[in-house]
Amino acid sequence: MFKLYGFAISNYYNMVKLALLEKGLPFEEVLFYAGQSPEALAISPRGKVPVLEVEQGFISETSVILDYLEQVHPEPALLPGDAFERAQVLALAKEIELYIELPARACFPEVFFGATLPEAIKEKAGVELLQGFAALRRHARFAPYVAGTSLSVADLYFQYSVNLALVVGDKLFGIDFLADMPEARALLERLEQTPNARRIAADKAALITARRSGR
Amino acid sequence: MFKLYGFAISNYYNMVKLALLEKGLPFEEVLFYAGQSPEALAISPRGKVPVLEVEQGFISETSVILDYLEQVHPEPALLPGDAFERAQVLALAKEIELYIELPARACFPEVFFGATLPEAIKEKAGVELLQGFAALRRHARFAPYVAGTSLSVADLYFQYSVNLALVVGDKLFGIDFLADMPEARALLERLEQTPNARRIAADKAALITARRSGR
Repeated sequence: MFKLYGFAISNYYNMVKLALLEKGLPFEEVLFYAGQSPEALAISPRGKVPVLEVEQGFISETSVILDYLEQVHPEPALLPGDAFERAQVLALAKEIELYIELPARACFPEVFFGATLPEAIKEKAGVELLQGFAALRRHARFAPYVAGTSLSVADLYFQYSVNLALVVGDKLFGIDFLADMPEARALLERLEQTPNARRIAADKAALITARRSGR
Repeated sequence: MFKLYGFAISNYYNMVKLALLEKGLPFEEVLFYAGQSPEALAISPRGKVPVLEVEQGFISETSVILDYLEQVHPEPALLPGDAFERAQVLALAKEIELYIELPARACFPEVFFGATLPEAIKEKAGVELLQGFAALRRHARFAPYVAGTSLSVADLYFQYSVNLALVVGDKLFGIDFLADMPEARALLERLEQTPNARRIAADKAALITARRSGR
């Protein structure tokens, strides 16, 4: 059985968890906060979550784990069979990761953890986020899913990166990045209401509560 | 025939170009500097290089183009057939991209373009680069290739990202990131001497010369 290492607050962890649930694959969750200890680095070369443990060993990096799951359990598919359509899904996922997730993440210390960031860093992130969302508007189809008529890995990135970027936009810049993309907003709401997404959200809330009470 | 959009100085462009050459696929090069013009954004949603034009349209993002080429022209293979080994190759490529290429790139304005970066940015990049190279040492096999006994997409990232990160280490931090990885240094030298890599280097040098002379 697969073992998924990480913690239920990590958005990358939740992308992989949703893929496992959508594919109906049994897995065990192992609470793992990563970091730079020798023990953590023996599991993840860069000390990151998530990690998937399979029979032969550990697999790092969300995009790679998702590719692996598609290789070994192609159905239900989260990538199209046609090579060009597959490329469009993967490009959308990568564009969300590089141009929305990464600049939003640069702002997490201030938005979620009470730190104060240098203006230069916030300004750069704000410009990049606007360009990232413009790219999403240009490339995505929202028909109703990000890349077309069915759920794909692009939706996993969309669901768990865009929601955090929206908080950054609201709290740091007073901007609603989806103001001119009602179809994207509708998709986000739809994705958040699926049974698997609700389970993931409940697990996240439970971990937050447990950490606050010091358990 | 494939059309490869970009310019011969871009390291990501050269990763895809090398994959096309290694696979023996015919392609036409289209000089394209990307950017935020409507014309550029019609080709690349985020205004980036490289872009591959195929019969059905455009494909963005280096990792996605490499995946596409492997899908439509699996031989000679740049990814292993075994799912777990494939995942290790892809994880190594991703680790080089996220943990070596990206922090090195944050330093390019000072190292290659004469700007002066804030100390905070350099300091952050320096720490990340040390951790990125430590991850590479932990995960790579160098046997003699990054992921094992044959050339893979991990080598493309290694060849065209690590070389620039080494310049950053030397010029900005006075550090040789490969000091304790002689087998990585040997692989880099080996990769740079292949006929295809020499052609790519010659094309890069020619474009640099042409730009300096204002052609």
